[in-house]
Amino acid sequence: MSTAAIVVIGNEILSAKVADENGPWLSRELRGLGVDLRRIETVPDEVPIIVDSLRRALASAKWVFTSGGIGPTHDDVTIAAVAQCFGRKVVPDERILSALRAHLGDRLNPALRRLADVPEGSTVDWSPGSLFPVVSLENVAVLPGPPVLFKEGFARIRDRYRAAPIFSRALYFGVGEGTLAEHLDATVARFPSVSIGSYPRFDDADHRVKVTFDGRDQAEVRRAADFLRERVPAGALLRED
Amino acid sequence: MSTAAIVVIGNEILSAKVADENGPWLSRELRGLGVDLRRIETVPDEVPIIVDSLRRALASAKWVFTSGGIGPTHDDVTIAAVAQCFGRKVVPDERILSALRAHLGDRLNPALRRLADVPEGSTVDWSPGSLFPVVSLENVAVLPGPPVLFKEGFARIRDRYRAAPIFSRALYFGVGEGTLAEHLDATVARFPSVSIGSYPRFDDADHRVKVTFDGRDQAEVRRAADFLRERVPAGALLRED
Repeated sequence: MSTAAIVVIGNEILSAKVADENGPWLSRELRGLGVDLRRIETVPDEVPIIVDSLRRALASAKWVFTSGGIGPTHDDVTIAAVAQCFGRKVVPDERILSALRAHLGDRLNPALRRLADVPEGSTVDWSPGSLFPVVSLENVAVLPGPPVLFKEGFARIRDRYRAAPIFSRALYFGVGEGTLAEHLDATVARFPSVSIGSYPRFDDADHRVKVTFDGRDQAEVRRAADFLRERVPAGALLRED
Repeated sequence: MSTAAIVVIGNEILSAKVADENGPWLSRELRGLGVDLRRIETVPDEVPIIVDSLRRALASAKWVFTSGGIGPTHDDVTIAAVAQCFGRKVVPDERILSALRAHLGDRLNPALRRLADVPEGSTVDWSPGSLFPVVSLENVAVLPGPPVLFKEGFARIRDRYRAAPIFSRALYFGVGEGTLAEHLDATVARFPSVSIGSYPRFDDADHRVKVTFDGRDQAEVRRAADFLRERVPAGALLRED
Protein backbone atom coordinates (compact mmCIF):
# COMPACT_ATOMS: atom_id res chain seq x y z
CA MET A 1 0.00 0.00 0.00
CA SER A 2 1.34 3.37 -0.97
CA THR A 3 1.03 5.70 2.01
CA ALA A 4 2.70 8.97 2.98
CA ALA A 5 3.14 11.41 5.85
CA ILE A 6 4.27 15.04 5.75
CA VAL A 7 6.29 16.79 8.45
CA VAL A 8 6.10 20.58 8.05
CA ILE A 9 8.89 22.27 10.00
CA GLY A 10 8.79 25.92 10.93
CA ASN A 11 8.07 28.33 13.76
CA GLU A 12 6.89 30.82 11.13
CA ILE A 13 3.88 28.64 10.35
CA LEU A 14 2.96 27.97 13.98
CA SER A 15 3.24 31.69 14.73
CA ALA A 16 1.04 32.46 11.71
CA LYS A 17 3.65 34.67 10.04
CA VAL A 18 3.41 32.47 6.95
CA ALA A 19 0.56 30.23 5.82
CA ASP A 20 1.79 26.76 4.89
CA GLU A 21 1.27 26.18 1.16
CA ASN A 22 3.39 23.05 0.89
CA GLY A 23 1.23 20.66 2.93
CA PRO A 24 -1.97 21.36 0.94
CA TRP A 25 -0.08 21.38 -2.36
CA LEU A 26 1.68 18.08 -1.69
CA SER A 27 -1.61 16.55 -0.47
CA ARG A 28 -3.10 17.23 -3.91
CA GLU A 29 -0.01 15.91 -5.73
CA LEU A 30 0.05 12.70 -3.67
CA ARG A 31 -3.64 12.18 -4.28
CA GLY A 32 -3.05 12.52 -8.02
CA LEU A 33 -0.26 9.96 -7.79
CA GLY A 34 -2.49 7.46 -5.95
CA VAL A 35 -0.64 7.83 -2.65
CA ASP A 36 -2.75 7.70 0.51
CA LEU A 37 -1.70 10.55 2.86
CA ARG A 38 -1.98 9.38 6.47
CA ARG A 39 -0.93 12.41 8.51
CA ILE A 40 0.52 15.92 8.42
CA GLU A 41 2.38 17.32 11.42
CA THR A 42 3.47 20.92 11.72
CA VAL A 43 6.21 21.27 14.30
CA PRO A 44 8.68 23.92 15.51
CA ASP A 45 12.38 24.22 14.57
CA GLU A 46 13.49 21.93 17.43
CA VAL A 47 15.49 18.77 16.73
CA PRO A 48 13.97 16.46 19.39
CA ILE A 49 10.41 17.33 18.32
CA ILE A 50 11.25 16.85 14.63
CA VAL A 51 12.93 13.49 15.33
CA ASP A 52 9.86 12.31 17.26
CA SER A 53 7.60 13.44 14.44
CA LEU A 54 9.76 11.70 11.80
CA ARG A 55 9.69 8.43 13.75
CA ARG A 56 5.91 8.55 13.99
CA ALA A 57 5.63 9.44 10.30
CA LEU A 58 7.84 6.47 9.36
CA ALA A 59 5.79 4.17 11.57
CA SER A 60 2.51 5.26 10.02
CA ALA A 61 3.39 5.54 6.32
CA LYS A 62 5.77 4.24 3.68
CA TRP A 63 6.93 7.61 2.34
CA VAL A 64 7.80 10.65 4.43
CA PHE A 65 8.32 14.21 3.20
CA THR A 66 9.73 17.09 5.19
CA SER A 67 9.09 20.73 4.33
CA GLY A 68 11.38 23.51 5.57
CA GLY A 69 14.31 23.96 7.91
CA ILE A 70 16.94 23.75 5.12
CA GLY A 71 19.60 26.43 4.85
CA PRO A 72 22.64 28.00 6.49
CA THR A 73 21.15 29.62 9.61
CA HIS A 74 20.57 28.61 13.24
CA ASP A 75 16.89 27.73 12.65
CA ASP A 76 17.69 25.28 9.82
CA VAL A 77 17.84 21.99 11.71
CA THR A 78 16.05 19.48 9.46
CA ILE A 79 19.22 17.76 8.18
CA ALA A 80 20.43 17.27 11.76
CA ALA A 81 17.04 15.86 12.76
CA VAL A 82 16.85 13.41 9.84
CA ALA A 83 20.41 12.23 10.57
CA GLN A 84 19.57 11.75 14.26
CA CYS A 85 16.37 9.88 13.40
CA PHE A 86 18.41 7.26 11.52
CA GLY A 87 21.48 7.39 13.79
CA ARG A 88 23.69 8.79 11.02
CA LYS A 89 26.42 11.42 11.08
CA VAL A 90 26.05 14.69 9.17
CA VAL A 91 28.74 14.83 6.47
CA PRO A 92 29.47 17.16 3.55
CA ASP A 93 28.37 15.90 0.13
CA GLU A 94 31.44 16.38 -2.09
CA ARG A 95 29.46 17.08 -5.24
CA ILE A 96 27.45 19.88 -3.62
CA LEU A 97 30.56 21.25 -1.94
CA SER A 98 32.46 21.52 -5.24
CA ALA A 99 29.49 23.21 -6.87
CA LEU A 100 29.35 25.69 -3.98
CA ARG A 101 33.11 26.28 -4.28
CA ALA A 102 32.82 26.86 -8.01
CA HIS A 103 29.86 29.21 -7.58
CA LEU A 104 30.92 31.15 -4.48
CA GLY A 105 34.72 31.09 -4.53
CA ASP A 106 36.08 32.77 -1.41
CA ARG A 107 32.60 33.82 -0.31
CA LEU A 108 32.13 30.16 0.78
CA ASN A 109 32.06 30.74 4.55
CA PRO A 110 31.26 28.13 7.24
CA ALA A 111 27.55 29.02 7.16
CA LEU A 112 27.23 28.46 3.41
CA ARG A 113 29.30 25.29 3.68
CA ARG A 114 26.39 23.88 5.72
CA LEU A 115 24.37 23.82 2.48
CA ALA A 116 26.44 20.77 1.48
CA ASP A 117 25.69 18.87 4.71
CA VAL A 118 23.68 15.66 4.38
CA PRO A 119 23.03 12.65 6.62
CA GLU A 120 25.68 10.03 5.82
CA GLY A 121 24.43 7.58 3.17
CA SER A 122 21.83 9.95 1.68
CA THR A 123 20.79 10.01 -1.95
CA VAL A 124 21.29 13.51 -3.34
CA ASP A 125 19.25 14.72 -6.31
CA TRP A 126 21.31 17.62 -7.54
CA SER A 127 22.23 19.09 -10.89
CA PRO A 128 24.93 21.74 -11.33
CA GLY A 129 22.36 24.48 -12.04
CA SER A 130 20.26 23.67 -8.99
CA LEU A 131 19.75 26.18 -6.18
CA PHE A 132 19.50 23.33 -3.67
CA PRO A 133 19.82 19.53 -3.43
CA VAL A 134 16.93 17.19 -2.68
CA VAL A 135 18.28 14.86 -0.01
CA SER A 136 16.61 11.48 0.59
CA LEU A 137 17.49 8.98 3.25
CA GLU A 138 15.70 5.64 3.19
CA ASN A 139 12.05 6.67 2.67
CA VAL A 140 12.39 10.27 3.86
CA ALA A 141 12.69 13.06 1.28
CA VAL A 142 13.87 16.46 2.51
CA LEU A 143 12.37 19.47 0.69
CA PRO A 144 12.95 23.19 1.26
CA GLY A 145 10.28 25.47 2.76
CA PRO A 146 9.89 28.27 0.18
CA PRO A 147 7.00 27.04 -2.00
CA VAL A 148 8.74 27.72 -5.31
CA LEU A 149 11.69 25.53 -4.21
CA PHE A 150 9.45 22.92 -2.59
CA LYS A 151 7.58 22.39 -5.85
CA GLU A 152 10.76 22.32 -7.93
CA GLY A 153 12.30 19.80 -5.55
CA PHE A 154 9.28 17.53 -5.56
CA ALA A 155 9.19 17.62 -9.38
CA ARG A 156 12.70 16.07 -9.38
CA ILE A 157 11.59 13.05 -7.38
CA ARG A 158 7.85 12.67 -8.02
CA ASP A 159 8.13 9.69 -10.38
CA ARG A 160 9.30 7.57 -7.46
CA TYR A 161 5.89 7.73 -5.85
CA ARG A 162 3.42 6.83 -8.60
CA ALA A 163 0.99 4.15 -7.36
CA ALA A 164 -2.28 2.53 -8.40
CA PRO A 165 -4.93 5.24 -8.89
CA ILE A 166 -7.58 6.07 -6.29
CA PHE A 167 -11.09 6.28 -7.79
CA SER A 168 -13.72 8.66 -6.42
CA ARG A 169 -17.40 9.31 -6.72
CA ALA A 170 -19.58 11.86 -4.95
CA LEU A 171 -23.32 12.13 -4.30
CA TYR A 172 -24.92 15.46 -3.35
CA PHE A 173 -28.04 15.41 -1.19
CA GLY A 174 -30.75 17.93 -0.33
CA VAL A 175 -31.47 16.23 3.02
CA GLY A 176 -29.41 16.40 6.21
CA GLU A 177 -26.97 13.93 7.75
CA GLY A 178 -29.62 12.82 10.27
CA THR A 179 -31.69 11.38 7.43
CA LEU A 180 -28.71 9.81 5.68
CA ALA A 181 -26.91 8.33 8.69
CA GLU A 182 -28.59 4.91 8.84
CA HIS A 183 -28.16 4.41 5.09
CA LEU A 184 -24.53 5.50 5.31
CA ASP A 185 -23.94 3.03 8.15
CA ALA A 186 -25.36 0.22 6.01
CA THR A 187 -23.19 1.25 3.06
CA VAL A 188 -20.03 1.49 5.19
CA ALA A 189 -20.71 -1.98 6.63
CA ARG A 190 -21.30 -3.49 3.18
CA PHE A 191 -18.26 -1.97 1.40
CA PRO A 192 -15.30 -2.14 3.78
CA SER A 193 -12.74 -1.50 1.01
CA VAL A 194 -14.37 1.82 0.10
CA SER A 195 -13.62 4.90 2.19
CA ILE A 196 -16.85 6.83 2.65
CA GLY A 197 -17.06 10.40 3.91
CA SER A 198 -20.06 12.60 4.71
CA TYR A 199 -19.65 16.39 4.54
CA PRO A 200 -22.50 18.67 5.61
CA ARG A 201 -22.68 22.27 4.45
CA PHE A 202 -23.87 25.15 6.58
CA ASP A 203 -23.41 27.92 4.04
CA ASP A 204 -25.46 28.72 0.94
CA ALA A 205 -24.20 25.73 -1.09
CA ASP A 206 -26.69 24.09 -3.48
CA HIS A 207 -26.67 20.90 -1.36
CA ARG A 208 -26.84 20.00 2.32
CA VAL A 209 -24.55 16.96 2.35
CA LYS A 210 -21.87 15.66 0.00
CA VAL A 211 -21.03 11.96 0.37
CA THR A 212 -17.75 10.76 -1.13
CA PHE A 213 -16.62 7.23 -2.03
CA ASP A 214 -12.92 6.47 -2.54
CA GLY A 215 -11.10 3.26 -3.32
CA ARG A 216 -8.61 1.46 -5.53
CA ASP A 217 -11.28 -0.83 -7.05
CA GLN A 218 -13.29 1.33 -9.43
CA ALA A 219 -16.21 -1.12 -9.75
CA GLU A 220 -16.51 -1.44 -5.98
CA VAL A 221 -16.54 2.36 -5.57
CA ARG A 222 -19.36 2.53 -8.12
CA ARG A 223 -21.28 -0.28 -6.38
CA ALA A 224 -21.02 1.51 -3.03
CA ALA A 225 -22.39 4.74 -4.51
CA ASP A 226 -25.19 2.81 -6.26
CA PHE A 227 -26.05 1.01 -3.01
CA LEU A 228 -26.46 4.27 -1.10
CA ARG A 229 -28.34 5.97 -3.96
CA GLU A 230 -30.90 3.18 -4.02
CA ARG A 231 -31.52 3.29 -0.27
CA VAL A 232 -32.10 7.01 0.30
CA PRO A 233 -35.59 8.49 0.05
CA ALA A 234 -36.67 9.43 -3.48
CA GLY A 235 -35.86 13.03 -4.37
CA ALA A 236 -33.09 13.36 -1.76
CA LEU A 237 -30.29 12.98 -4.32
CA LEU A 238 -29.62 16.25 -6.17
CA ARG A 239 -26.71 15.28 -8.40
CA GLU A 240 -23.55 13.19 -8.57
CA ASP A 241 -20.06 13.26 -10.02
CA MET B 1 3.25 29.82 29.72
CA SER B 2 0.26 29.86 27.45
CA THR B 3 0.75 27.22 24.77
CA ALA B 4 -1.62 25.39 22.41
CA ALA B 5 -1.84 22.48 20.00
CA ILE B 6 -4.39 21.86 17.24
CA VAL B 7 -5.62 18.43 16.13
CA VAL B 8 -7.34 18.64 12.74
CA ILE B 9 -9.45 15.54 12.12
CA GLY B 10 -10.62 14.54 8.68
CA ASN B 11 -9.93 12.19 5.80
CA GLU B 12 -11.23 14.91 3.46
CA ILE B 13 -8.21 17.09 4.26
CA LEU B 14 -5.63 14.29 3.89
CA SER B 15 -7.21 13.27 0.59
CA ALA B 16 -7.10 16.92 -0.58
CA LYS B 17 -10.85 17.11 -1.18
CA VAL B 18 -10.98 20.11 1.15
CA ALA B 19 -8.21 22.53 2.11
CA ASP B 20 -8.04 23.02 5.88
CA GLU B 21 -8.95 26.60 6.73
CA ASN B 22 -9.34 26.09 10.46
CA GLY B 23 -5.71 25.38 11.38
CA PRO B 24 -4.35 28.54 9.69
CA TRP B 25 -7.25 30.66 10.98
CA LEU B 26 -6.87 29.46 14.57
CA SER B 27 -3.07 29.95 14.36
CA ARG B 28 -3.68 33.63 13.64
CA GLU B 29 -6.29 33.95 16.40
CA LEU B 30 -4.03 32.29 18.97
CA ARG B 31 -1.15 34.51 17.98
CA GLY B 32 -3.36 37.56 18.47
CA LEU B 33 -4.32 36.27 21.91
CA GLY B 34 -0.67 35.79 22.93
CA VAL B 35 -0.87 31.99 22.86
CA ASP B 36 2.19 30.10 21.61
CA LEU B 37 1.08 27.37 19.15
CA ARG B 38 3.37 24.33 19.53
CA ARG B 39 2.03 21.88 16.96
CA ILE B 40 -0.71 21.09 14.46
CA GLU B 41 -1.50 17.50 13.57
CA THR B 42 -3.86 16.53 10.77
CA VAL B 43 -5.09 12.96 11.23
CA PRO B 44 -7.69 10.61 9.74
CA ASP B 45 -11.14 9.80 11.18
CA GLU B 46 -9.76 6.90 13.25
CA VAL B 47 -10.23 6.81 17.03
CA PRO B 48 -6.87 5.25 18.05
CA ILE B 49 -4.92 7.75 15.93
CA ILE B 50 -6.92 10.71 17.26
CA VAL B 51 -6.44 9.53 20.86
CA ASP B 52 -2.69 9.25 20.32
CA SER B 53 -2.61 12.70 18.78
CA LEU B 54 -4.66 14.21 21.64
CA ARG B 55 -2.32 12.70 24.23
CA ARG B 56 0.71 14.16 22.48
CA ALA B 57 -1.04 17.53 22.13
CA LEU B 58 -1.85 17.56 25.87
CA ALA B 59 1.73 16.63 26.71
CA SER B 60 3.17 19.43 24.58
CA ALA B 61 0.79 22.31 25.26
CA LYS B 62 -1.61 23.69 27.84
CA TRP B 63 -4.60 24.16 25.53
CA VAL B 64 -5.77 21.72 22.87
CA PHE B 65 -8.28 22.37 20.09
CA THR B 66 -9.84 19.78 17.83
CA SER B 67 -11.33 20.61 14.44
CA GLY B 68 -13.86 18.32 12.75
CA GLY B 69 -15.36 14.89 13.24
CA ILE B 70 -18.51 16.22 14.96
CA GLY B 71 -21.94 15.10 13.74
CA PRO B 72 -24.33 12.20 13.39
CA THR B 73 -22.56 9.97 10.84
CA HIS B 74 -20.11 7.06 10.94
CA ASP B 75 -17.07 9.29 10.25
CA ASP B 76 -17.80 11.61 13.21
CA VAL B 77 -15.65 10.05 15.92
CA THR B 78 -14.08 13.01 17.73
CA ILE B 79 -16.34 12.84 20.80
CA ALA B 80 -15.57 9.14 21.22
CA ALA B 81 -11.83 9.84 20.89
CA VAL B 82 -11.82 12.68 23.44
CA ALA B 83 -13.80 10.51 25.88
CA GLN B 84 -11.35 7.63 25.40
CA CYS B 85 -8.36 9.94 25.82
CA PHE B 86 -9.59 10.86 29.31
CA GLY B 87 -11.09 7.45 30.18
CA ARG B 88 -14.63 8.86 30.27
CA LYS B 89 -17.93 7.44 29.10
CA VAL B 90 -19.93 9.09 26.31
CA VAL B 91 -23.25 10.29 27.74
CA PRO B 92 -26.10 12.43 26.41
CA ASP B 93 -26.14 16.05 27.59
CA GLU B 94 -29.69 16.65 28.79
CA ARG B 95 -29.79 20.30 27.81
CA ILE B 96 -28.77 19.56 24.21
CA LEU B 97 -31.12 16.59 24.07
CA SER B 98 -34.13 18.68 25.13
CA ALA B 99 -33.24 21.35 22.60
CA LEU B 100 -33.03 18.68 19.88
CA ARG B 101 -36.38 17.24 21.01
CA ALA B 102 -38.00 20.68 20.93
CA HIS B 103 -36.54 21.46 17.53
CA LEU B 104 -36.93 18.10 15.77
CA GLY B 105 -39.91 16.43 17.47
CA ASP B 106 -40.41 12.95 16.06
CA ARG B 107 -37.67 13.47 13.48
CA LEU B 108 -35.20 12.92 16.37
CA ASN B 109 -33.80 9.55 15.27
CA PRO B 110 -30.86 7.65 16.83
CA ALA B 111 -28.37 9.33 14.48
CA LEU B 112 -29.46 12.86 15.40
CA ARG B 113 -29.55 11.89 19.07
CA ARG B 114 -25.75 11.46 18.79
CA LEU B 115 -25.52 15.25 18.46
CA ALA B 116 -26.22 15.40 22.22
CA ASP B 117 -23.41 12.97 23.10
CA VAL B 118 -20.53 14.36 25.15
CA PRO B 119 -17.73 12.83 27.23
CA GLU B 120 -18.98 12.54 30.83
CA GLY B 121 -18.02 15.61 32.87
CA SER B 122 -17.66 17.95 29.88
CA THR B 123 -18.42 21.66 29.94
CA VAL B 124 -20.95 22.45 27.24
CA ASP B 125 -21.15 25.94 25.74
CA TRP B 126 -24.58 25.94 24.21
CA SER B 127 -27.37 28.44 23.81
CA PRO B 128 -30.88 27.49 22.66
CA GLY B 129 -30.41 29.09 19.23
CA SER B 130 -27.08 27.34 18.58
CA LEU B 131 -26.62 24.91 15.70
CA PHE B 132 -24.08 22.95 17.75
CA PRO B 133 -22.54 22.83 21.24
CA VAL B 134 -18.89 23.58 22.00
CA VAL B 135 -17.77 20.73 24.24
CA SER B 136 -14.71 21.15 26.45
CA LEU B 137 -13.14 18.53 28.66
CA GLU B 138 -10.27 19.59 30.88
CA ASN B 139 -8.08 21.63 28.50
CA VAL B 140 -9.45 20.19 25.24
CA ALA B 141 -12.02 22.21 23.26
CA VAL B 142 -13.96 20.37 20.55
CA LEU B 143 -14.90 22.48 17.51
CA PRO B 144 -16.78 21.48 14.35
CA GLY B 145 -15.05 21.20 10.96
CA PRO B 146 -17.09 23.50 8.68
CA PRO B 147 -15.18 26.82 8.89
CA VAL B 148 -18.27 28.95 9.52
CA LEU B 149 -19.15 26.80 12.55
CA PHE B 150 -15.53 26.49 13.69
CA LYS B 151 -15.21 30.27 13.87
CA GLU B 152 -18.57 30.71 15.59
CA GLY B 153 -17.65 28.05 18.15
CA PHE B 154 -14.25 29.55 18.88
CA ALA B 155 -15.84 33.00 19.34
CA ARG B 156 -17.92 31.53 22.20
CA ILE B 157 -14.84 30.43 24.14
CA ARG B 158 -12.01 32.70 23.00
CA ASP B 159 -11.91 34.86 26.12
CA ARG B 160 -10.62 31.85 28.05
CA TYR B 161 -7.33 31.93 26.22
CA ARG B 162 -6.13 35.54 26.39
CA ALA B 163 -2.51 35.68 27.56
CA ALA B 164 0.34 38.17 27.78
CA PRO B 165 1.01 39.62 24.32
CA ILE B 166 3.83 38.42 22.05
CA PHE B 167 5.87 41.32 20.61
CA SER B 168 7.45 41.13 17.17
CA ARG B 169 9.93 43.02 15.06
CA ALA B 170 11.26 42.25 11.60
CA LEU B 171 14.36 43.32 9.67
CA TYR B 172 14.53 42.99 5.88
CA PHE B 173 17.92 42.47 4.27
CA GLY B 174 19.29 42.75 0.74
CA VAL B 175 22.04 40.19 1.45
CA GLY B 176 21.71 36.41 1.68
CA GLU B 177 21.55 34.10 4.69
CA GLY B 178 25.20 33.11 4.17
CA THR B 179 26.26 36.66 5.02
CA LEU B 180 23.86 36.98 7.95
CA ALA B 181 24.39 33.58 9.57
CA GLU B 182 27.32 34.39 11.88
CA HIS B 183 25.61 37.58 13.09
CA LEU B 184 22.36 35.70 13.62
CA ASP B 185 24.20 33.04 15.65
CA ALA B 186 25.66 35.76 17.87
CA THR B 187 22.24 37.36 18.33
CA VAL B 188 20.55 34.03 19.12
CA ALA B 189 23.26 33.26 21.72
CA ARG B 190 22.93 36.70 23.34
CA PHE B 191 19.08 36.84 23.54
CA PRO B 192 17.85 33.40 24.59
CA SER B 193 14.37 34.68 25.52
CA VAL B 194 13.78 36.02 22.00
CA SER B 195 12.69 33.64 19.25
CA ILE B 196 14.59 34.55 16.08
CA GLY B 197 13.69 33.31 12.60
CA SER B 198 15.40 33.81 9.26
CA TYR B 199 13.32 33.53 6.08
CA PRO B 200 15.01 33.73 2.67
CA ARG B 201 13.04 34.62 -0.45
CA PHE B 202 13.60 33.07 -3.85
CA ASP B 203 10.93 34.97 -5.74
CA ASP B 204 10.89 38.62 -6.85
CA ALA B 205 10.36 40.03 -3.36
CA ASP B 206 12.01 43.38 -2.55
CA HIS B 207 14.33 41.69 -0.01
CA ARG B 208 16.42 38.52 0.16
CA VAL B 209 15.99 37.66 3.83
CA LYS B 210 13.46 38.63 6.49
CA VAL B 211 14.62 38.16 10.08
CA THR B 212 11.94 38.10 12.77
CA PHE B 213 12.23 38.60 16.54
CA ASP B 214 9.43 37.45 18.87
CA GLY B 215 9.11 37.52 22.63
CA ARG B 216 7.01 38.49 25.62
CA ASP B 217 9.50 41.18 26.76
CA GLN B 218 9.10 44.07 24.35
CA ALA B 219 12.34 45.80 25.36
CA GLU B 220 14.35 42.60 24.93
CA VAL B 221 12.83 42.03 21.47
CA ARG B 222 13.90 45.56 20.51
CA ARG B 223 17.40 45.01 21.94
CA ALA B 224 17.82 41.80 19.94
CA ALA B 225 16.83 43.55 16.69
CA ASP B 226 19.15 46.48 17.52
CA PHE B 227 22.01 44.07 18.25
CA LEU B 228 21.70 42.35 14.88
CA ARG B 229 21.19 45.64 13.01
CA GLU B 230 24.45 47.02 14.41
CA ARG B 231 26.48 43.93 13.48
CA VAL B 232 25.50 43.45 9.83
CA PRO B 233 27.49 45.16 7.04
CA ALA B 234 26.41 48.73 6.30
CA GLY B 235 23.79 48.94 3.57
CA ALA B 236 22.59 45.36 4.06
CA LEU B 237 19.46 46.43 5.96
CA LEU B 238 16.68 47.57 3.61
CA ARG B 239 13.87 48.33 6.05
CA GLU B 240 12.26 47.18 9.29
CA ASP B 241 8.86 46.91 10.93
